[in-house]
Amino acid sequence: MRAVDVIMKKRSGGELDRGELATIIEGYVAGSVPDYQVAAWAMAVFFKGMTPRETATLTELMLDSGKRMNLSGLDGSASPFVDKHSTGGVGDKVSLILAPLAASLGLRVPMMSGRALGHTGGTLDKLESIPGYRTGLSEGDFRDGIRNDGYAMTGQTAEIVPADKKLYALRDVTGTVESIPLITASILSKKVAEGADALVFDIKCGPGAFMKTIAEAEALAQSLVRTGSAMGKRIIGVITDMSEPLGATVGNFFEVEESLDCLEGRGPADLMEVTLRLTAWMLVAGGKVATVEEGIASCRDALATGGPRERFLANVRRQGGDVERLLALRGNYRSKFSFELRAPASGFIASIDAWKIGLASVNLGVGRNTSADTVSPDVGLIFSKKSGDRVEKGETVATVFGKDEASLAASRPLVEAALAIEPAAPPKKSLIIKEIMS
Amino acid sequence: MRAVDVIMKKRSGGELDRGELATIIEGYVAGSVPDYQVAAWAMAVFFKGMTPRETATLTELMLDSGKRMNLSGLDGSASPFVDKHSTGGVGDKVSLILAPLAASLGLRVPMMSGRALGHTGGTLDKLESIPGYRTGLSEGDFRDGIRNDGYAMTGQTAEIVPADKKLYALRDVTGTVESIPLITASILSKKVAEGADALVFDIKCGPGAFMKTIAEAEALAQSLVRTGSAMGKRIIGVITDMSEPLGATVGNFFEVEESLDCLEGRGPADLMEVTLRLTAWMLVAGGKVATVEEGIASCRDALATGGPRERFLANVRRQGGDVERLLALRGNYRSKFSFELRAPASGFIASIDAWKIGLASVNLGVGRNTSADTVSPDVGLIFSKKSGDRVEKGETVATVFGKDEASLAASRPLVEAALAIEPAAPPKKSLIIKEIMS
Repeated sequence: MRAVDVIMKKRSGGELDRGELATIIEGYVAGSVPDYQVAAWAMAVFFKGMTPRETATLTELMLDSGKRMNLSGLDGSASPFVDKHSTGGVGDKVSLILAPLAASLGLRVPMMSGRALGHTGGTLDKLESIPGYRTGLSEGDFRDGIRNDGYAMTGQTAEIVPADKKLYALRDVTGTVESIPLITASILSKKVAEGADALVFDIKCGPGAFMKTIAEAEALAQSLVRTGSAMGKRIIGVITDMSEPLGATVGNFFEVEESLDCLEGRGPADLMEVTLRLTAWMLVAGGKVATVEEGIASCRDALATGGPRERFLANVRRQGGDVERLLALRGNYRSKFSFELRAPASGFIASIDAWKIGLASVNLGVGRNTSADTVSPDVGLIFSKKSGDRVEKGETVATVFGKDEASLAASRPLVEAALAIEPAAPPKKSLIIKEIMS
Repeated sequence: MRAVDVIMKKRSGGELDRGELATIIEGYVAGSVPDYQVAAWAMAVFFKGMTPRETATLTELMLDSGKRMNLSGLDGSASPFVDKHSTGGVGDKVSLILAPLAASLGLRVPMMSGRALGHTGGTLDKLESIPGYRTGLSEGDFRDGIRNDGYAMTGQTAEIVPADKKLYALRDVTGTVESIPLITASILSKKVAEGADALVFDIKCGPGAFMKTIAEAEALAQSLVRTGSAMGKRIIGVITDMSEPLGATVGNFFEVEESLDCLEGRGPADLMEVTLRLTAWMLVAGGKVATVEEGIASCRDALATGGPRERFLANVRRQGGDVERLLALRGNYRSKFSFELRAPASGFIASIDAWKIGLASVNLGVGRNTSADTVSPDVGLIFSKKSGDRVEKGETVATVFGKDEASLAASRPLVEAALAIEPAAPPKKSLIIKEIMS
């Protein structure tokens, strides 16, 4: 079968069968189908979509392009392997809290994370702001971590879904990122490859997320749930609001600090709401509790024991991090370049635009403009006020730290534009927008 | 400007400006924009189209990628340069008759033609079936031919619209050929580059053409007329029927023979109808006559003098062809591998499917399956009956010549399937479907 015929069939809206999809994916990985044909195919998929069957087949083919982590027989335990994946947001440090919390409640969490991408931060970058912490674990170290602490945090190895690495890089430069079936196959192939039995997806929705509207987020959630279920996994999709940065901090070490606050029972309400809900769904998906409410109650009980915090510190230590130094740096690890964002008027904070804050944070040094950029640990934003809070004119809303004066200057207009103050308090709303399961 | 941003703008249906289009086209020719980005852009254009302004800008940018033939000052004559272009059909030898006919009526025809492509034949391949005939003229020889004979026939040089050569080759393998604005820019940039003042386009329509429906053909005709006019050229688009092969022959030398028949006043009715109409429109476009009817009358008068035939032979001689050998081979230059297509029943020929005959002719050796294939001069089909003719069961409808037995065997089912016989005569119809001008 010729690749051009597969492209033309998709261009006309046809459903591609396994052989046709294999022509593209296997041919691309093998180098026999050139990138320009794959680019044209991806653009045709962008316009014509894929059926659930096609999406599942594409996911399987991508999965088969590499190695699957084999976690069965890790230890004698019958505890299920459950992971969570977020589509990416601003201030989203949920994984750092959720993993030790879920592990302390008897799940095993084989977490493979990514780095800062576009305006969103990356779990690996946050963890690496802890002095000594290593995220490039060998398979043996990854398994050891899960066996001992119930979880481990690592990056994807080159052997995990090589087709996705190649295809994602191509999609990024050919304007074909925003395609539900291609996003589904990319996310799901990696998550299935890491060996989890059940998966909870946090689909961020709003100005600070890749999915801007609830309709888009719901389409992705449905696609992930349907495709993952067809592959024999238990999948739950939770659509959460990403209008405003999650929690009180944006920044690599700042978010580690805030995660510790949460593990100590002092986390901000918005961040805790999302973290507890997602962890509770993991407990449901892993068969530990019957309902999400029961799961939330278990989480609260666990946090009260201090166990999850101990597990977090145990993981830091096991992955090379210096716990004593982490605790000593807490509250002090701040760049000397900073400014205060002050309320330009008295009133109530109506919104803090996550998209603008995300872009500003990249400029500050939290994320990357190109994959060659390095990130800084001690920069970002620390909010003293969030939406709904009363402020007086001139009062500090956030302290902004940058890697140098230039980065502060570049971020300032974005940060200022992100803040909206109104005379009346905005209505309170839950960050949990919708939950989807098969 | 980044190519990916241009792709995404087109993907959303935006109108690209000159700078954005230059990013793609100039970048592609210069090698700074890779083929995978151009492929994704072309697929986005396929789905989202282009405005008339965008199409004109694209055409100009492609034109500017190479050299324009400068024909002004060719001689002291004020005769206009007028050319005709066909989108490609089966048995379409119109150029071979029209060029000497138009030249004998005072036009100058700078004709750059192509080779067999897909199921359609190529003017250059037909001419090269004349022993000695050369189609790769230098610019000097091309100008000499036009100066002396009023016309010359050549292929496109590498300097004419290099962007189209690169882009067409990419479109061919990425499923992005069938896009009206991309076809328009491809055709028009080459035709404008060859230096004509006015152009007549024969847009073939039907099963044997690239445009299958009248709506598609009309969309292309409108786009060519609108874009060409915006570039200051006089453009006329004629949509002609390509349900059945044009004339009585399909094959390289066979079509040269039939062209001579036409120049001698013995051409088949369908072929003469299309040829006279297109030539007459060239005369109108070149200001030689006021109406197409007047043009047709002039053509008939000219043919009666024998002048166009003499001009044809003069061109053959000037381009290296052996006129004596051409005339001696006439009627005798036939492959020894042949079979007769006989009527399977008595009745009237209702149709002879041009698409199937075109595919069969490629197998016989008339055209090419890949660009590396060579074509044979003495193969093809000679029809003794056409649509509307009465046939008795077992009577010969066509004689089919192939390069070997295998090619005959491969073509036979297609040739047989192309023929439809009905009890009643089909209605007579004109091949001229619609004429479009600005």
